[in-house]
Amino acid sequence: MSSPAEERIVPEARVPRWDAHADVVVVGLGCAGASTAIEAARAGAETLVLERASGGGGTTGSSGGVLYCGGGTSVQKACGFDDSPDEMFAYLRASTGPAPDLEKLRIYCERSVEHFEWLRSLAIPFKASYWPHNFEPWTDDCLWYSGSEEAHPYRELARPAPRGHTVQAEGSCAGGPVLMHALEQALRTAGAEVATDVRVLSLVRAGDGGIVGVVGRHAGRDLHLRARRGVVLATGGFVANRGLVARHAPQALALEPLGGAGDDGSGIELGRAAGAECLNLSAMAYTCPVLVPFELIRGILVNRHGQRFVNEDVNHKRIGEELVLRQEGRMFLVVDAESFARPSFPGIELVASGESPGELEAELGLPPLSLAKTLELYNAHAAQGRDPLFGKRAAFLRPLASPPYGTFDCSVGSGAPVCVFTLGVLWTAPGGDVRRPDGAAIPGLFAAGRSTSCLSAQSCGSSGLQIGEGTFFGRLAGQAAARERA
Amino acid sequence: MSSPAEERIVPEARVPRWDAHADVVVVGLGCAGASTAIEAARAGAETLVLERASGGGGTTGSSGGVLYCGGGTSVQKACGFDDSPDEMFAYLRASTGPAPDLEKLRIYCERSVEHFEWLRSLAIPFKASYWPHNFEPWTDDCLWYSGSEEAHPYRELARPAPRGHTVQAEGSCAGGPVLMHALEQALRTAGAEVATDVRVLSLVRAGDGGIVGVVGRHAGRDLHLRARRGVVLATGGFVANRGLVARHAPQALALEPLGGAGDDGSGIELGRAAGAECLNLSAMAYTCPVLVPFELIRGILVNRHGQRFVNEDVNHKRIGEELVLRQEGRMFLVVDAESFARPSFPGIELVASGESPGELEAELGLPPLSLAKTLELYNAHAAQGRDPLFGKRAAFLRPLASPPYGTFDCSVGSGAPVCVFTLGVLWTAPGGDVRRPDGAAIPGLFAAGRSTSCLSAQSCGSSGLQIGEGTFFGRLAGQAAARERA
Repeated sequence: MSSPAEERIVPEARVPRWDAHADVVVVGLGCAGASTAIEAARAGAETLVLERASGGGGTTGSSGGVLYCGGGTSVQKACGFDDSPDEMFAYLRASTGPAPDLEKLRIYCERSVEHFEWLRSLAIPFKASYWPHNFEPWTDDCLWYSGSEEAHPYRELARPAPRGHTVQAEGSCAGGPVLMHALEQALRTAGAEVATDVRVLSLVRAGDGGIVGVVGRHAGRDLHLRARRGVVLATGGFVANRGLVARHAPQALALEPLGGAGDDGSGIELGRAAGAECLNLSAMAYTCPVLVPFELIRGILVNRHGQRFVNEDVNHKRIGEELVLRQEGRMFLVVDAESFARPSFPGIELVASGESPGELEAELGLPPLSLAKTLELYNAHAAQGRDPLFGKRAAFLRPLASPPYGTFDCSVGSGAPVCVFTLGVLWTAPGGDVRRPDGAAIPGLFAAGRSTSCLSAQSCGSSGLQIGEGTFFGRLAGQAAARERA
Repeated sequence: MSSPAEERIVPEARVPRWDAHADVVVVGLGCAGASTAIEAARAGAETLVLERASGGGGTTGSSGGVLYCGGGTSVQKACGFDDSPDEMFAYLRASTGPAPDLEKLRIYCERSVEHFEWLRSLAIPFKASYWPHNFEPWTDDCLWYSGSEEAHPYRELARPAPRGHTVQAEGSCAGGPVLMHALEQALRTAGAEVATDVRVLSLVRAGDGGIVGVVGRHAGRDLHLRARRGVVLATGGFVANRGLVARHAPQALALEPLGGAGDDGSGIELGRAAGAECLNLSAMAYTCPVLVPFELIRGILVNRHGQRFVNEDVNHKRIGEELVLRQEGRMFLVVDAESFARPSFPGIELVASGESPGELEAELGLPPLSLAKTLELYNAHAAQGRDPLFGKRAAFLRPLASPPYGTFDCSVGSGAPVCVFTLGVLWTAPGGDVRRPDGAAIPGLFAAGRSTSCLSAQSCGSSGLQIGEGTFFGRLAGQAAARERA
């Protein structure tokens, strides 16, 4: 779907005529592009949003509409949860990879309450209610623990608070469309224009290296669109570009892509053709909601050696990351009669059962005695209400000692729900300026959303970060792009 | 040490004068640059090698001079080992990451015997002798198992053969200088010229995007050097560029860099300024020779949960990769009285000892019972001569049941020898042509050695690959660059 490399940059001198002008041209109408456009238009910039599809929405439009916000939002307070920007910062710092961008992280946390109120001011509905589970609400409730805040080691590093804020809508995965509808309404009210069915093929570059416009294709015609102040790439990730995934993150090829067809990396390709540095192209976010309902957390997850490897009460994204990156894609859930429950997500099959660990080992092809020793150790500790290996919370600890035992296969390729999206991005400054390898900004070029670096750097362990950072840093990019050029 | 991004590409129109001309300009005089120059000069191209230091050698010059060759070399035959290109291919395919470049791998294996003879034809000495250990010879012996060929799972995937070929020299780490001396001799004999103390700042680009020369700095002066046929970047990796490492592979910052000061990524930066695709910037190779002498392989390695995680008889590079990427940098070696030995490498300290696993757990801060259960399981299997969890070979299996027990700390930061070098590269075709993101070659630009993609893609589990592929693909790049331009 993307254009050949040699066409991605068009020198300004070769533009035959400008078909239209705007101060700010935004490429892509997901949550990041919409937020960018709202703020650019409100700052007084003539703003044009180009969307490849026939309507806005992007990947956000088919999501549940969860935003990771905190520091003491009105909903957190109404539900009786105490939070602060510092606690939020400490949690995110610990859970987003070995080297998150601390400057962006700090801004995001300090302004999260304000950002949440900004969203509410756009008439985006949030119910002042708490959802007491570690998975996206299937009701119209709002606030939940969408990360591993309550789990080891995070609970020792930051005071836990739920920060997943779900847009109010009836039913599962219904908040995203409501969110996008409100954002699109707001951008039109602010005076931004939207052109759909326009695929951006190229950036137009001036003699000084700055970006001054784009070439878009609409109904078979090339349109040359001048951007007086800036172009903002808000085109999403690249999980739908199988070639790029194969080249940079082959471990993800076997997994279900999480994202729309528009997530083909077109903006990332445009940015790097303009000289941008890319970061984390090999990094992926994994989702793996196998421990739903939550009774299943009382079971244990073991690898192909029969060993535990994670506290089962962490967020399912962290479990997915462990599974794919550290356990060769092989994982079994072992339960006893008391912890047995039927998994909520389809595809997770009961593959073994028996009166003793030995029977399971034989059925599963695990090394003899391996599961037995794992259970002896787990049970000895669980009887004391503790898990000194991985730190699972006492609430989920109970010896697994009530036969029959059962085992669900949660391995990659077993049918279990293991999905993936990309974390590889264009490098940007906090304000959204796209950076070259030496750190210098490319004049006139900005990025927002999943096509650029926000908080989930090498790792994404919490739900709601993508829309949270997409809308927040989209706003900053809109404000930056709307400024007159130096 | 590298030039600012905006200066890395100089348009040909801005070259004031050409100070010198050659058909082929090679940047960097390590093993790859030297091999490139030999073949370019032999193909009839006027060849100029530019080296930043006052003499050649690069990282190869301070190494042991090990090359990964096989398929039935004269030394393999003389030592009585049977090998074939297909077995070599099967081993390397399985041990170089999830998606190695199969085209390059195939060529490398099929031509390895020829390549080894080419090296011998340059009077590079190799003794026809076998070194029966899984670590670089400290004698003048040649052939050894430099990877994990004999270990699970590789031994089931390919018939094992030793393929580490060490240049003959007295003492440890002495082969590299001998190798470089011979290569430099050969390139001069072939008629290539070398200019030292020349730091290449920029590539010169023609109007069609092709590379037609370089700008080098010598004694404070800028020299404009025309390359009629091609420029070959043979500048090494980027482990000495702490900024790049921090941005792309922060997990490596705490480790000892393995490489010279020249490994600052200058060629990679030049290549991508010219539009090259980079691959695997976050990938690293790890070395971790803690199980020397080999008696120590009879001990077990455990993580901070007291669990085993690897067959201890794999190559130390694989152990290092596990340690850093999957065990959070924490690793203990547990031995009993019979398997005790003093580690050969300094920095590996005995940190606990006791009559029982429980005493070790307490001293090390491991979870109570964890090491005990691990030993019960390991010993039960070892008594039967097998290791169904990780597949350690029977020769190293014996119950650890002779107190006192001892534990060496092999963790990152403990003082144990854990080193790192970069696997991030410019993407190239098998012939060395540097590729853009869409796969098209950049006319006139080639790369060889650690600055480009050869065989060790996302993972490097065998010693000798760097010099093996650096010399082999250096030769191909020299041949390609020496051809007339289309």
